[in-house]
Amino acid sequence: MIDDELLELMKERWTVRKFLDRDVPEEELDKILEAGRWAPSGGNKQPWELVIIKDREKRDKVAEIYSEAMGLKGRSKRYTTPPILIAVCIDTRVRDSYPDEMPADFIVYASVGSMVQNMMLMAAELGLGLSWGTQPKRVQKELKELLDIPEHLEIPDILQLGYPDQERYSSSRKELDDFVHHDSVMVD
Amino acid sequence: MIDDELLELMKERWTVRKFLDRDVPEEELDKILEAGRWAPSGGNKQPWELVIIKDREKRDKVAEIYSEAMGLKGRSKRYTTPPILIAVCIDTRVRDSYPDEMPADFIVYASVGSMVQNMMLMAAELGLGLSWGTQPKRVQKELKELLDIPEHLEIPDILQLGYPDQERYSSSRKELDDFVHHDSVMVD
Repeated sequence: MIDDELLELMKERWTVRKFLDRDVPEEELDKILEAGRWAPSGGNKQPWELVIIKDREKRDKVAEIYSEAMGLKGRSKRYTTPPILIAVCIDTRVRDSYPDEMPADFIVYASVGSMVQNMMLMAAELGLGLSWGTQPKRVQKELKELLDIPEHLEIPDILQLGYPDQERYSSSRKELDDFVHHDSVMVD
Repeated sequence: MIDDELLELMKERWTVRKFLDRDVPEEELDKILEAGRWAPSGGNKQPWELVIIKDREKRDKVAEIYSEAMGLKGRSKRYTTPPILIAVCIDTRVRDSYPDEMPADFIVYASVGSMVQNMMLMAAELGLGLSWGTQPKRVQKELKELLDIPEHLEIPDILQLGYPDQERYSSSRKELDDFVHHDSVMVD
């Protein structure tokens, strides 16, 4: 691979919110999961579990829980249209195992960010969209019941995976000079 | 780019802890920063600032602060050998701007994880090592003074960047079956 191609892939990845009614081949899903599997994590603890949700009823229920919590009318297309939802679960036992002096939330959540980014890049490479979907705290209990998730896991996010059913829109970023400093922040 | 090559890159990336005394070309550093720049973040808020630390005295001081806090003898090679350290700062004003009902820590820290993962993949592609280095909470004040970092930023991590001065070691991962579930966690 060439670094230019890698950068292009990173720039081309985008957040899909409406998906085609078209299945994702098992082989492609496996590639995406395998990409996530190899992400780094604090102490290589891999403090995550993933629940692949393909069941139509469960997907509708996720959409309903989310839409109700956010005060939306009807079920959010963001959760009803993708053929696959992926609940990202965090093992709170790993988070709670760090000494008080370490920023345990940061370690665990940034690790999950690395893992999801690997999956997103692989999805983009395969022409698929994989998008973040943060869950409000008040739906934790309902989601856990729906997916039979044990007490020690929390579900901060439900990803959406599928083929895009919308035109790619452009998304801007800060310039490097706006967030990169040299040796000191104040004197820049 | 081909998905096999992308997966290979993800598998080949590793955590370097000892670095050669060899400068990183400006052009390579820019490519790594540019990769980070295009990462996704919650609401595209890009809640990060980066401080590139090349100054020898400041790098030694970072090593000293870290080693003292961790009760290590001498200065940690992990921070003295790399030619570049990158302090990852988080804008706490972004984190504090979310409604109570949203998991703000998760959104902000997972976004930073995505950004760093992009940088790590680009570094690996260029034959460089870029490694996480979480900072204990008690050194926040000293680090902020050293780098003139304003009150609203926190510094959970200082990355290390350079060419490896050690053999690559292998690192294992859980099998997919160990952390991937289907439609429900309990019934798997």
